[in-house]
This record gives sequence, C-alpha cells and structure tokens, in this order.
Amino acid sequence: MNTPTANVSVHDVYLAKSRTAQFVRKTPLVESSLLTEKSGDNVYVKLENLQSTGSFKIRGAANKILSLTPEEFSRGVIAVSSGNHGKAVSFTAKMLGTKATICLSKRVPQNKVKAIQRLGAEIVIHGESYDESDTRARELEIERGLTQIHSFDDPWIIAGQGTIGVELLEDLPEVDTAIVPIQGGGLFNGIALALKAINPDLRMVGVTMDRAPVMYHSLEAGTPLDMEELPTLADALVGGIGGDLNKITFDLTRRHIDEYVLVSEEEIASAMVFMLKEHKVVVEGAGAVGVAALLHNKILNLGENAAVVVSGSGVDIEMIVDLVHGKLPYK
Amino acid sequence: MNTPTANVSVHDVYLAKSRTAQFVRKTPLVESSLLTEKSGDNVYVKLENLQSTGSFKIRGAANKILSLTPEEFSRGVIAVSSGNHGKAVSFTAKMLGTKATICLSKRVPQNKVKAIQRLGAEIVIHGESYDESDTRARELEIERGLTQIHSFDDPWIIAGQGTIGVELLEDLPEVDTAIVPIQGGGLFNGIALALKAINPDLRMVGVTMDRAPVMYHSLEAGTPLDMEELPTLADALVGGIGGDLNKITFDLTRRHIDEYVLVSEEEIASAMVFMLKEHKVVVEGAGAVGVAALLHNKILNLGENAAVVVSGSGVDIEMIVDLVHGKLPYK
Repeated sequence: MNTPTANVSVHDVYLAKSRTAQFVRKTPLVESSLLTEKSGDNVYVKLENLQSTGSFKIRGAANKILSLTPEEFSRGVIAVSSGNHGKAVSFTAKMLGTKATICLSKRVPQNKVKAIQRLGAEIVIHGESYDESDTRARELEIERGLTQIHSFDDPWIIAGQGTIGVELLEDLPEVDTAIVPIQGGGLFNGIALALKAINPDLRMVGVTMDRAPVMYHSLEAGTPLDMEELPTLADALVGGIGGDLNKITFDLTRRHIDEYVLVSEEEIASAMVFMLKEHKVVVEGAGAVGVAALLHNKILNLGENAAVVVSGSGVDIEMIVDLVHGKLPYK
Repeated sequence: MNTPTANVSVHDVYLAKSRTAQFVRKTPLVESSLLTEKSGDNVYVKLENLQSTGSFKIRGAANKILSLTPEEFSRGVIAVSSGNHGKAVSFTAKMLGTKATICLSKRVPQNKVKAIQRLGAEIVIHGESYDESDTRARELEIERGLTQIHSFDDPWIIAGQGTIGVELLEDLPEVDTAIVPIQGGGLFNGIALALKAINPDLRMVGVTMDRAPVMYHSLEAGTPLDMEELPTLADALVGGIGGDLNKITFDLTRRHIDEYVLVSEEEIASAMVFMLKEHKVVVEGAGAVGVAALLHNKILNLGENAAVVVSGSGVDIEMIVDLVHGKLPYK
C-alpha cells in the first residue's frame, strides 16, 4: 500500500475514497435558498452532519485504521478526541473487530462520552484540556503498544477527510469557493488538497470560533503555538494543533488558506437555529461556523458558487432548545 | 407522451423518474441503529423530509405539471392542499414559469401558508376542511380554466411519488417490507406499484393517525367514505379521499396494502422527538407515523430489511420544542 507522506496528494484522497466506501455515506449537497438570496451568489450546504457517526470524522478514521498492518490492527488503536473523532474511531474499530481506547478531557460533552461508550470503546478521561488528554494518550500508546489514530495531523486522516472535496466536485463541479471549519486542519486541508488540485483557482475560506483560534494565531505568529482552551458552543473545534509537535497541518494550512474568518458564540448560535428552522437538521456549534460566517456577512470574497461544509450534529437537544429560546451557554 | 391511466404502472414510475430529475433530490436512506436493535431486523429510514420543498410532494407535482399541454400550462394550475402539496405545486410552477393558485382550508398551519406565499402562488383560504376547500378549487378550476393538480387521485401524481420506490430498490434491493404513511393513497400506492412490480413478495405496511383515518374506514366499509376531520400532529394526513369522487387510489390501496396500522398523537410525538434526537432531523407529524408504529411495536410482520418512509419536515420549531418538553397540542 502506498503510504501518504507530508506531501499527501489528491491521489491519496481518491485512494481513500475507494478504501473507505463501506463506512462512508455520500452526504447531500443542497442549495440554501435563503443564503443564496442573502448573498446574491449560489450557496450550497454540504450536510456532513448526516454522516455516519454524526460527523465527517469517520472518513479519516476509517482510512487510517484500514491502513494498519495486521500486527498493528490486532494490538488495537488509541485516539485523543474532543468527541467526534473518538466516536468515529470507536465505530470503525468495532465494525472491523479491534479494540479502541479513547482519551478525552473533562471538557468533552456528556452526549459524546456516552455515544463512545455505547460503541464499546475503553474511555480514559484525563486532564482539563485536549492537550492534557493528548499527553496521557501518548503514554498509553507506548505502555500498551497501541497505534495512535491522530485526529488531524496525519496524512491518512487528511486524505480521508478530503473525500468530501471529491463529493463536492461530483455534485457541483462549478464550485469556486469552499467554506470549511478549521482548527487542527485535517478537514480543511484534506478538502483543499482535493479541490485545489482539480481547480487551482478555487478559494478556500477557513472559519473557526473566536474563543481560542489556535491555528489562526499560529499562522499570524508564523509558528505553531499553544493556547489556553475556552468553553465554546463549537466544542468540536476545541484543542490545540500540537505546538512544536505539529508535523503537517500547520504548513498545509499556510499553503492552502485564502481567507480566515472568526465567528462569535452569538453568531454560531444563530447559525444553529437557522439550520434547524430552514434546513430542518440539527447542527452542532463547530458544524455551524461556516453558515455563521455567511449569515453575518463575514466572508469578503464569495464566488458565484460557494459550498459550505456543515461538519457534525453532536449536540444535545436540550442545548438546541435553549438556543431556540435565545439562551447562550457561554458569552 | 404516454398518459398513465387508472392502470398506472411501474413503467410510468420510471418515466416519471427521468422526467422529474431536475426537480427531485435523491434522498438518503440510512440505517436506524436503534430501530434495528429494537426490532431485531434491519430498519432503514428514507429521509424524504430532506426533499426539495420539504416533502415528497414535489415528485408527483413536478411529474404532473411537466405533462401538461402548452395550452394547459399557459393557463396555469390550481391545487387544494393540506400544505405540502401546495408548496410543491407552487415551487414547480415558479421554476417552470406558470401561475399557481392554491386552495387551503383554515386548518392549514401558518408555517405552510407562509411558505406557499413566499413561492409566489395565489392563496385562496376557504372552509373548515380539506373537502370544503376542494369544492372551492373545483369551482375556480372551471371559472378560470385552470388545470387541477390533484394531491393524490391522479395517475401522474401516483407515478411521481412512486419514484421513491425506485430509489429504495437502488439503495436496498433486499428491502422486503416498506412502511409508508397513507391517507389519500398517492404516496403509498406509487411506492407499492414500483416495489411490488419488481418484488411481488414485498410487504406494504400503511400507517396513519388514529384521529380520522378515512382510507382505513373506507377499506373496512368496502367503499370510499367521508369523515369529519380532527386536528392532529399529522396535519399533512388530514383530508378525505374524495368520497364517491375517488377514481383510483381506493381501488389501488385495496390491491396493495398488506397491513394497516393506526398510531396515536402520543406515539407520533415520541417518533418526532426520536428522529430529532437520534437522526438529528426535523420530521413533521405525518412524516413520523411509520417510525411511531415501529417504536411502539405496532407492526406485526416486519421482514429482515424494512424501509420506513419519513415523508416531510413541515413543522414549526416551537412545536418541536413543545414536544421535546412533553407538551402535546391535541389529546
């Protein structure tokens, strides 16, 4: 099997698409008539919140786990996660028949912890932040001889997430702007790899929450930084980019990103309610950042055909009900 | 063009699929792991609530309007509707460039009235029931020389709705039980036509609300009946089957239905909340009746691979919030 390197390519993305086909749903791309009306350009939403396991994370996790040697596979896998990646790794491990250990910080929402438990993974809750649970995962990896399934900084993961880009090209070859959530950079760069390889003029807009946008500040500083985590509606975007340990996604993001947009908690909440009312789907905070940027006119250069990736659905219904009533958990 | 007759066939369904392709989305069919676990059989949900215009009705409406002669088309169309069909007719008319007049009773929920208005149709609100607004529509049809786009009792409409059956066969050829909402019988019989033509052993289960199940009582009586309407969460299933005027769907239903299930308001509400929590999508009451029947163990003969058609999303968010809190509007 060809191993993707730091020079992960669009070919790796196509290989990932074929390799993961049994695990991954092709998700709907639908026009958002209200966003189209508001912006004056054609806006489509890619409903990856309807993906198996509730987020795009299954794409990368399945691609990585399917690449393991028989020895690695039989020893089992370990992952650190803000929730969605842990679900995806547990689900794939269960389906293929190996053991998953998932390290979570105390911040991970209960609905995601329970979902991972239901999938039969061993859960290790450790530390107050993604980075603290990451440290514990690196220890367990060595102690137990497990293979780390990194949530973003791995060529197999990036190639897997990139399969969304191929689906966008299949359904909307005219796409000229892709609006994608970003933090670690696995999703963003996978999609960018696929889209820019086929159409170098395509613009990649990255969107994240304004509370602890680590990649954003790292790009400004010119080097991967560490930052304190803050609670946010976009809990799936919480976590660092690995600081000095970042191997791939910092450089890839620097190469791929054309515009970087930050959104507030209020803007994210309004986008979650918009998606529920207008598109009749539940979207978690992290999944709604691209729509938030559009609703609040924060994207400067929207082309004629923009696709917004709506990345996950992992949010408690009680939280959604609060947001419909205008109650925000964090300010 | 071949005109489908009362003997509307699976060939008419395939012709409808090709004719309406520009208007109709192929909707996702996804496994419901919790319903599978509960029933012990494989259960899949067909998410027609994610269809363009928010329900399956676009399939039949587009097929009918695309079949009009240039003269009929230029004079315009009229439809009577409990909401969803009116949206579908207005949308198709707007896209193709003719005028739609939609007759609604006073019972039709405000969210659906507004959605039809936004699509530029002329709205005529008349009477306390579907049948009363139907009478007014038949007058206007003659006065104004419009073509009636019937919501169920028309071979073009039935063939259009049947395209869901073709999609089910594409995605799950093993399907042996289809669970489909029924009242007028357009959706149910279109799907039955397609599925039973390909697999005569397939079982068709019809599900409706227990508050005014006109088709159910008509089958028991052996003749199409009239019944008083009652308010229900499943507002899209409100309306008669035309009494003596029923031309096609009564006979087709008698031929196609293998099991008939009625569900209560409480059961419908629980299914709407289930779909929101587990499948992360908004489903209206009428769209949730099949899931309600499964959740409450009301289907006697479930095969190994059952597909449940979830037919629409037209419900106000405030209503959904009430249901999450356990508040039922009708008892």
